[in-house]
Amino acid sequence: MPVGTAGTVKAVPQDVLEDLGARIILGNTYHLYLRPGHELVRKMGGLHKFMSWERALLTDSGGFQVFSLSELRKVSEEGVSFRSHLDGTSHLFTPERSMEIQIALGADIVMAFDECTEHPAERDRARRSMELTLRWARRSKDYFEAHKHENPWNRAESADREIGTSGDRVIGEPGDPILFGSAQPGAAAVHALPTAPALFGIVQGGMYADLRRKSAERTVELDFPGYAIGGLSVGESREKTMEMIAAVLELLPKDKPRYVMGVGYPEEIVRYAALGVDMMDCVLPTRAARHGLLFTSEGRLNIKNARFAQDQNPPDIQCRCRVCVRYTRAYLRHLFVSAEPLAGVLNTIHNLAFYLDTMRSVRHAITLGDLTGVLSGSVS
Amino acid sequence: MPVGTAGTVKAVPQDVLEDLGARIILGNTYHLYLRPGHELVRKMGGLHKFMSWERALLTDSGGFQVFSLSELRKVSEEGVSFRSHLDGTSHLFTPERSMEIQIALGADIVMAFDECTEHPAERDRARRSMELTLRWARRSKDYFEAHKHENPWNRAESADREIGTSGDRVIGEPGDPILFGSAQPGAAAVHALPTAPALFGIVQGGMYADLRRKSAERTVELDFPGYAIGGLSVGESREKTMEMIAAVLELLPKDKPRYVMGVGYPEEIVRYAALGVDMMDCVLPTRAARHGLLFTSEGRLNIKNARFAQDQNPPDIQCRCRVCVRYTRAYLRHLFVSAEPLAGVLNTIHNLAFYLDTMRSVRHAITLGDLTGVLSGSVS
Repeated sequence: MPVGTAGTVKAVPQDVLEDLGARIILGNTYHLYLRPGHELVRKMGGLHKFMSWERALLTDSGGFQVFSLSELRKVSEEGVSFRSHLDGTSHLFTPERSMEIQIALGADIVMAFDECTEHPAERDRARRSMELTLRWARRSKDYFEAHKHENPWNRAESADREIGTSGDRVIGEPGDPILFGSAQPGAAAVHALPTAPALFGIVQGGMYADLRRKSAERTVELDFPGYAIGGLSVGESREKTMEMIAAVLELLPKDKPRYVMGVGYPEEIVRYAALGVDMMDCVLPTRAARHGLLFTSEGRLNIKNARFAQDQNPPDIQCRCRVCVRYTRAYLRHLFVSAEPLAGVLNTIHNLAFYLDTMRSVRHAITLGDLTGVLSGSVS
Repeated sequence: MPVGTAGTVKAVPQDVLEDLGARIILGNTYHLYLRPGHELVRKMGGLHKFMSWERALLTDSGGFQVFSLSELRKVSEEGVSFRSHLDGTSHLFTPERSMEIQIALGADIVMAFDECTEHPAERDRARRSMELTLRWARRSKDYFEAHKHENPWNRAESADREIGTSGDRVIGEPGDPILFGSAQPGAAAVHALPTAPALFGIVQGGMYADLRRKSAERTVELDFPGYAIGGLSVGESREKTMEMIAAVLELLPKDKPRYVMGVGYPEEIVRYAALGVDMMDCVLPTRAARHGLLFTSEGRLNIKNARFAQDQNPPDIQCRCRVCVRYTRAYLRHLFVSAEPLAGVLNTIHNLAFYLDTMRSVRHAITLGDLTGVLSGSVS
């Protein structure tokens, strides 16, 4: 999922995202709550309508961003009080408040409010944090079930509509079972548009496999339609990330989406997918693009490097995205070195194309029943 | 002409410019000379190929930018020495050097090297500056005629090709006589692609009508395929601008393009067109966009204004550009207030659409033989 923090995948118009084949993007609850505010977004008909995005949207819980972005945060049983990074004003996020905001935003997938355990954390600290997340998951679910139909797109008539008709949101494509985890080929091509969002639970537990497993078991007991693994890619080794994912995945239902939050590099997301992960989000393709880092079939490429000054090759010789079919490395280097806004636009479009192509290759390989080609990098 | 200072119309991908119907854009010699450098651009096949722009390109002479952007400039009979605004290095622009650079860049229309007289200027100062520009025009022409075939796109085979075939530059559209000033409807639809650029002369003379007329007469004596009026919109009143344009236009051949440089607001460019001006360029639509100022059929609109926070109307209700058919003022305001890069992208696309639509209306009205509707704003 491309990350669209403040109701925009940075620098990329929505029609380009559609052309790239992005079918779901992520919005950040913390940012949208602060600006433009969830009540304004609700009044505007929800985030889909506000940003003109008919396809699926997932919002995070705000928990991770509060921990990483705001000053003077204070965690209690009730929730997290924090100060805005924009103006220093005080706010309180609770599980109930996070649900209220996400429902107002009108996300298709709402995330339970969790505490992202810091890294490193002592075992006892990780255990207590994991248990707090479990209690918050229960409170999230209770509030969500009582209020989920208050989303701004819950119109009576939409219940009868089918996916793919004009004006409705597309939450999947015919024959494409990725989003809701259905693994059998030829699965039902058309789903009824839901009248309420889905709430996913989040597994925590720091870097302790037994705590992770306990978190997974107890989160599954709460019975969510999808499960995320949070609190990874926070500074631990990649081996540790893999170990935690592997420990948890076997305990999460295979017939429901399994989502690893906040990962990763292209080669990592392929490996996680091979383990059984269905969904991932990451700021890397968009953020790296703005710093001139391009992901290509030949590896990472720092476009500001002087060796590209006269390089007439496309950014990625293997890529057929609208940037690679039209522009050269020499031109992209010039734009970046000159701090031209088009640099961020074009770099981001290519990186998203690379990530989305990577995941298309993964889905194709899954359909064929063989991921080895994708894992070795021979399938592009 | 949209302004593409450094080989990019800021924030707008080239395919979007094509969709908007931009058929010629302007590049700045001063900027491109400093970065990435005209020799690099020449090696890359010229600016068309470097930036992937198959349509027409005009480059300015560098004179105006040297005067307005660089420090410690010093004008002599030979030329202008100046320091780069990027790194303080010393450089010299002469008429010959300006021609050499513009030919290397591969522009379709090259501008004579001129001195843009500062405003206000005493009559004697304006006269001497105007005469210097005339001497530089002669030197520009001499160098240009001797070297114009050294442009990077002068391939032997292109002489036989016709406009509009794939891979060639389009310097006009069938039946569309605007670019080279042919006024008769039904003029030849197809021109052979030129093998050399065209050099336009520039009229100066400050704010003195008689000096302007003298400059016009003597520039026409030098016999250029097109003429520009420079040194306007430099702080004088709009009445004075109109007076200078009117004084000069009647002396410039009607069967050659007449180009007023660096203007203007939408209502101004319509008025100048009504006087007989064929070409204009201005940074206003692009620069204003990046500051949140939108040009609309209802006038100017400052998108950051709080009254747009919940405005679900498109930026311009009359406009059918890709921004106006998809996004609301509320969303554009949110993007701008949040300093999102997409704000600059979308605002610029709309403003360019508004300017290009305005000029399309002007051309349509000229075809019909009646500009009164466009002048009164009733034709959109």
